[in-house]
Amino acid sequence: MDQDGEVNPLTIAIVGFGNFGQFLAKAFIEAGHRVVGFSRSDYHAVASQLGCVFESNADELLERHHPSVLVLATSILSTEQVLRQFPTEKLENCLVVDVLSVKVYARELMLRYLPVSSDILATHPMFGPESGRDSWRGLPFVFERVRIRRYERCEAFLDIFRSRGCTLVEMACQEHDHYAASTQFITHTTGRMLAELKITSTPINTRGFESLLAVVETTVRDSFDLYYGLYRFNPNAKEELNKMQRALERVRSRLEEYDRLYQAAESKRQ
Amino acid sequence: MDQDGEVNPLTIAIVGFGNFGQFLAKAFIEAGHRVVGFSRSDYHAVASQLGCVFESNADELLERHHPSVLVLATSILSTEQVLRQFPTEKLENCLVVDVLSVKVYARELMLRYLPVSSDILATHPMFGPESGRDSWRGLPFVFERVRIRRYERCEAFLDIFRSRGCTLVEMACQEHDHYAASTQFITHTTGRMLAELKITSTPINTRGFESLLAVVETTVRDSFDLYYGLYRFNPNAKEELNKMQRALERVRSRLEEYDRLYQAAESKRQ
Repeated sequence: MDQDGEVNPLTIAIVGFGNFGQFLAKAFIEAGHRVVGFSRSDYHAVASQLGCVFESNADELLERHHPSVLVLATSILSTEQVLRQFPTEKLENCLVVDVLSVKVYARELMLRYLPVSSDILATHPMFGPESGRDSWRGLPFVFERVRIRRYERCEAFLDIFRSRGCTLVEMACQEHDHYAASTQFITHTTGRMLAELKITSTPINTRGFESLLAVVETTVRDSFDLYYGLYRFNPNAKEELNKMQRALERVRSRLEEYDRLYQAAESKRQ
Repeated sequence: MDQDGEVNPLTIAIVGFGNFGQFLAKAFIEAGHRVVGFSRSDYHAVASQLGCVFESNADELLERHHPSVLVLATSILSTEQVLRQFPTEKLENCLVVDVLSVKVYARELMLRYLPVSSDILATHPMFGPESGRDSWRGLPFVFERVRIRRYERCEAFLDIFRSRGCTLVEMACQEHDHYAASTQFITHTTGRMLAELKITSTPINTRGFESLLAVVETTVRDSFDLYYGLYRFNPNAKEELNKMQRALERVRSRLEEYDRLYQAAESKRQ
């Protein structure tokens, strides 16, 4: 295949064409690349609105369109199943990119199911249709070049994010999961805890409380599947959840200890 | 006393001249009123920098300056002690205003210690030197006219906040404490829980995580005394803390329940 023809424009298949897949498709199209949506559900109408084609049969996807890049925009929970059912042996020489929120697990799945001749790029765009609605400027795009032989094609793909102003952060998958557990998973857990409390706007919101309301709103807009995916497939998440419960317990203990001291001082004073 | 002379300008004594007292003093002075700082600690230097006088003897404060408004900018924990030691019998005909973050308790203290001829205004400016640094526009100022006979003087005082753009929210003290427990206390508790976790900025912060970092920063800048004051003297706070622990426990239970279902489905599939 002509190296240059592979890069300008790329033909990018997006496997999993839900909200996030469509969100990416839009940006890829705006960058001048050809996009083919793929899902077992029917997204023909959405695809033609976005200005791309759509296939729901994997063999036809590959035979008709010869994508040089295949993006896995599947949910964390379904990715392994999708890879099992996909004719991955036909992805020789393809660049396969995942966009999952857990990276050690995604890296391992891709290494396990993809042919050795394929290139692998593990990525996590740390934003979505909500937080990236107006602009991607300054938003972190994390990636690890797991196995790249065709450097130019990989750069052409990364350029889509670069040219929209993302902050590209090259980071080992393991390091990503370490950070993500103490940031993204904690944020989701805090949001879901506060959602359980049914916190709502009052006439007397402080600025801090309004920040928390915003966190709840973005958190619960994401599916519970995503949250569970973070919990199950980020190896550090369970320990972070334990830590959160212990931290809240410690806050209570400090209040109760202070209470004892205060009341002892009060009774002396009277 | 000449009614008009009492209103334009007011002579306002600020009892408790820490950060928050000084923050208020600045605004009162900018509104054209005379301010006298009062504290047992020596704040002469700060006061003269701000452009007001300072007294550390209560009798001299009253005899020299004849304040028509006295603002209690003491901490929640010290207010009762301050009122006990203050020559409150000399506050006849004075307007006494508190700015405590708990209102049922403050109202009760003022009714208990102040002469019946005094006017009482219970207030809670829902902001501070940080959140109100640039502007007070749109920030909530909660108040209850507990006992007001000299309406005009009270309005002149409220006008200070009105004219800076605060949203004035007239609300019974009990209602305030109900809302505040499910907003301010939850915000502080969340901030302190996350502070215990030592969350810090990473190269891959999401927007939501950055909101949480901001909440931690404002929370821990406030003293533990304030937080304890909210806990002890807002009658709804303890129940909110229980609810938070239960909510976090429920989030964990949902994850664990989902985990059982997922693993059962997985083992069937294989």
